[in-house]
Order: sequence, then C-alpha cells, then structure tokens
Amino acid sequence: MERTIDLNKKNYICIERFAMVKAMHKKSLEKAIAEKKADLQIISLCRFVSKTKNFFTSSSCAGRIILLQLPKGENKRDACFHRKWHRIVKEKELWDGIDAETKGELWFKLDPFIFHVGANSLENAKKVLTAMTKAGVKRGGIIVAKPGKFLIELQGSQGIAFPVKKEKKVLVEKGYMRYILERANEKLEKNYTLLKRLEKEFKKELK
Amino acid sequence: MERTIDLNKKNYICIERFAMVKAMHKKSLEKAIAEKKADLQIISLCRFVSKTKNFFTSSSCAGRIILLQLPKGENKRDACFHRKWHRIVKEKELWDGIDAETKGELWFKLDPFIFHVGANSLENAKKVLTAMTKAGVKRGGIIVAKPGKFLIELQGSQGIAFPVKKEKKVLVEKGYMRYILERANEKLEKNYTLLKRLEKEFKKELK
Repeated sequence: MERTIDLNKKNYICIERFAMVKAMHKKSLEKAIAEKKADLQIISLCRFVSKTKNFFTSSSCAGRIILLQLPKGENKRDACFHRKWHRIVKEKELWDGIDAETKGELWFKLDPFIFHVGANSLENAKKVLTAMTKAGVKRGGIIVAKPGKFLIELQGSQGIAFPVKKEKKVLVEKGYMRYILERANEKLEKNYTLLKRLEKEFKKELK
Repeated sequence: MERTIDLNKKNYICIERFAMVKAMHKKSLEKAIAEKKADLQIISLCRFVSKTKNFFTSSSCAGRIILLQLPKGENKRDACFHRKWHRIVKEKELWDGIDAETKGELWFKLDPFIFHVGANSLENAKKVLTAMTKAGVKRGGIIVAKPGKFLIELQGSQGIAFPVKKEKKVLVEKGYMRYILERANEKLEKNYTLLKRLEKEFKKELK
C-alpha cells in the first residue's frame, strides 16, 4: 500500500513537472514569435506541437545558410556567426559576407533543420520517432529519458560545409561559389519541404 | 495471477530475443574482422561492447574520407562510393580519384564515425547516453525503443562536404584541395581520438 502511495506521488510529481516545463516552453515560443526571433518556416510546426497535450518544443532551427568564423583552430566554442540566413541567399549578399573583415577560418555551411520535441512518456516519445520515419527524416533519436521527460532531437540531412577563407585570403573562386550557392539554395528548399512533411506526419501521430 | 504469468512469459521472450540478436551481431562482427571488412579504428570498441552482458553493436563506421558520386540529382539512393578511405589520404590518391571517370556530381566528404549500440533495457540504453556525454560526443540518441531492444545511434560531428566535379568538369583547384585535404586529415585524426575517448567511457559505464 505504501509503495502504491509512493508511486502515485512520484507519478504526480512527474505530471506536474511536465506541465510546468511545457508551459515554460510555450511562453518562450510565443515570446520568440512576437519578437520575430523565431524562424518563419518552423513556426507553424512549433505552434502545433505546443498545442498538443503530451508534447512541447524547445530549441529549434528551420535550416540555414551561414558563414561561420572559427577564430582559433577549430574549437566550436570560439565559433561565431559571421552571416546567417534562414532563406534563399543571393550571390551579392554572400560575397559581401566573404569580403568583409574576418579572422581565422571562414566556413560556408548549409545546416539542415534541427528540432527538439519533449514528450511526457516513452510511449509518446516513440510516436515522434514514428512520425519522423514516416516523413522521411533520417536523423533523430531520444536524447534524454527521465520519468516524465523525454526529449527527442530531429535533424534534416541536407548539408554542405567547407572553408572559403583563411585570414585575409579568399580560397574560392566566384564561378565555383555561384555553383555552390545555387546547390545550397536548392538544398535549403528541399530541407523546408521535408519540414512541411514532418508537420503533416506530426498532425497525424501526435495528439 | 494470470497477468503475472503473462508478464513473466513476455519478459522471458524479450530476454531470449535479446540474447539471439546479440549472438547474431557478435558473429557478424567476428566475420567482418576475419574478412578484414571491419574498420581498424573501431574494432577494439566493438569487441568490448560485444563482450558485455547487456549490449551489442550492429553497423558501424569509424569515420572516413570519401569521393561520393551522385549520378542523377541528389537522390542518395543512387549515390555510390567512387573512393573510400578509413585513414589519412595522400594528395596523389585524391587526384587519382577526382581525375578518374565519373558521372553526375562528385562530392568530397569527410564523414565522422557512426556507431550503433543495442541495449536490453531503457536503463542500460541511458548508460550509453551517459558515456556518450562524458566522452564529449554531441550527436546521439535512442532510435529504436521496444521491449528488450533499445538501439542507440552515436555520431561524431567533424564534417566536410562539397562538390568537386560536375560531369567531366573539375570545379576545384589543386592548391585549394591541398588545403582541404590537410584539414580533412586533421579532422579525421580528431574523430579517431574521440572514438578512443568513447571507448574509455564505455569501459567505465557499460557492464
């Protein structure tokens, strides 16, 4: 009997904790949208998840094209965004970025979307994995598994990454970068399409 | 009472199933090693996991430098390895690969390690996530969660990816590729070091 009470108490604490975390993330999301800090392509997906009973979203990025500065060696902690676009990029914008003053190594990157979903149980976390597979998203898994808090990370797989500049020296040619930018823009569009498919599957699987 | 018997039976089936899957993967691993098909840098880690009671390894790759051919569009199903090295690569080898006949788009890629571990319970799967975090591996999660079978995917995060050739036209210069290859070789070494750290943490966390 005592054990039952203990379990009920533990269960109650988990439910309370989940509700609190969910409410907190909902608030952060609405704040980010109001301040125009949320990526446009992912707002609808985040809002849907936010309205379900058993799930929440925390950090997310819809996918982007970036110029990343690595000042010393390749320690990612020192890395900083020199330019960041969550949309199709024009050649002139890219070269304005490359030609501006930078230090160390400058990388051109197409990063796919990354999306975190919280669930209140393992069973519900598994529904996220099912939706992911059905949408054709290949990378993702449960990264935190605690009573009442399961966190799933999902990621797209479109990616480009290479250095374009070392100190003041540009390493790449205009013609080559024109080709790459066209490919990167295409891949970014594909990435946003995949995100839409994920939203569709979420709407079927998650309640 | 009946329910207890049912649960015991279910539990027994799970244990049996796990033992079977584990034995099968152990056999595949030893076969791959005997046929020299296993990546040298990951054998010791795989063998350790294989000898534990509660874990097994399935597919894995230690990390590699590749030339990947995408014949039509960017459908990865049509992609094929034009060259593949699980070690430091020399400039001459790289250019032999680039200059050889290829179709469609040819990509230069540094892929980090990817490693799958099976566990017999959620508690044990969580030990893999703990070891991963302690080793400094940032990407990984539980991708399958079934009674008696939990599968965790771990991945390194060093990566380079960009097209170097389109049909017969080489898009990159010798000097640039010399720079890139040096960086890729450095990153591959870092990737192997991370794998060693992961093995050390596995030895502490997994029994």
